[in-house]
Amino acid sequence: MKKKRKSAGIITIGNEILSGKTIDTNSNFICNQLFNIGVSCEEVCTIKDEKLKIIEKVNIFRSKYDYVFTSGGIGPTHDDITSDSIAQAFGQKLLMNEEARKRLVEHYSDDILTKARLKMAFLPEQASLIDNPVSVAPGFFVENVFVFPGVPKILQIMVKEFVKSLDGGIRYYKKTVSTKLSEGIIGSYVEKIQKKFSYLEIGSYPYFKKKSFGVSLIIKGDDKSKVIEASMEIYSYIKSIKGEPKIF
Amino acid sequence: MKKKRKSAGIITIGNEILSGKTIDTNSNFICNQLFNIGVSCEEVCTIKDEKLKIIEKVNIFRSKYDYVFTSGGIGPTHDDITSDSIAQAFGQKLLMNEEARKRLVEHYSDDILTKARLKMAFLPEQASLIDNPVSVAPGFFVENVFVFPGVPKILQIMVKEFVKSLDGGIRYYKKTVSTKLSEGIIGSYVEKIQKKFSYLEIGSYPYFKKKSFGVSLIIKGDDKSKVIEASMEIYSYIKSIKGEPKIF
Repeated sequence: MKKKRKSAGIITIGNEILSGKTIDTNSNFICNQLFNIGVSCEEVCTIKDEKLKIIEKVNIFRSKYDYVFTSGGIGPTHDDITSDSIAQAFGQKLLMNEEARKRLVEHYSDDILTKARLKMAFLPEQASLIDNPVSVAPGFFVENVFVFPGVPKILQIMVKEFVKSLDGGIRYYKKTVSTKLSEGIIGSYVEKIQKKFSYLEIGSYPYFKKKSFGVSLIIKGDDKSKVIEASMEIYSYIKSIKGEPKIF
Repeated sequence: MKKKRKSAGIITIGNEILSGKTIDTNSNFICNQLFNIGVSCEEVCTIKDEKLKIIEKVNIFRSKYDYVFTSGGIGPTHDDITSDSIAQAFGQKLLMNEEARKRLVEHYSDDILTKARLKMAFLPEQASLIDNPVSVAPGFFVENVFVFPGVPKILQIMVKEFVKSLDGGIRYYKKTVSTKLSEGIIGSYVEKIQKKFSYLEIGSYPYFKKKSFGVSLIIKGDDKSKVIEASMEIYSYIKSIKGEPKIF
């Protein structure tokens, strides 16, 4: 039997993103990792550090998608309220997690294991830890909700490792055909070819470089031979109208 | 009477973002512009190029927020379905907009005004145009939903100009106090000061540079004198514990 593709949603939490101070690169990193294992990311959202908003969004996402990733809000300060919110979303208590505390105690000497840092050991009662090889304080998951810190360097290392353990379902195959012609010129043709290969996803992405512009067409799907067939057909057409296609 | 702060939500539309190919920088640009005029961006989301998903999200956002921005999906290709989706979200027809068509005709000579390009003149029947000084094809708005293209260079010029026409409500005041101490050290103090100045928003953002790390505290609110008072109190405290504060 054919495996079903898994779906995912990402929630990034942080006022600094919504005020424009910070560009969210975490969701892009997670999207890439998910794409590589064949999980379809269906939605990314960014919301404020507000408990009710986090609870609401987590509950919507966890019923809608197979996997939910959150980033941000599990550090030692007053605005780090993600762990508490996740606990409430699942109707669980927020408790001192012994293993998390042990790790913090081992990492910090007594005089710098402040009350603020110890806060990072309080997790939903049924949380399982996700290792943090960079700064010790762990991420965690409850059922299908995976909770990561917001600092990109730490999140990336943790997610990269964690994603290996997920069941990714079927992989994507992908080909790119680029041309120096514009979308306005090839648009009608691409619409036709999309109809012909309706079970593939053909995306059209204009690019602008210093001295040139053009379009990259990305052909994506489950069936490798069909992806190649469609790509070659597009390549031949663009060549026939002198569009200088490249395929890769 | 005191003015109420306006809220906004941003919807970016595009499979290329969800597959990790592209980092969404458009929402960051819009967030910055909104912050500058005192509009609070409450939520950013990215969804796929699928009509039902766009309709659903636009209808949720337009009832929830004062202003809704969308980016992406108004070009000439088959996967550009935003205009049609917005029309359906408002229960309007998608019709040839005479003014938009005129602009395209003036810009493109007859032989390059392809059927695909002409598609960009089909807009919801009650759409008002938003000027596009870069590539002519206009954006548009229907009621409180503002529709922009996905190409960052074009979006930025259009949004920058358009935002000037919005009623921004009250401006934000903001101060930053940075220190070389970590969040774990100052976390408890910051929690106390947040409670004291509960009507301000105090955010704590760790930073990591090549040879140093530390925290930036951002103090934000409507009342300039209170923002300054809280910032000076934080500055003095950090100085007293030798945290080498900077204020700006």
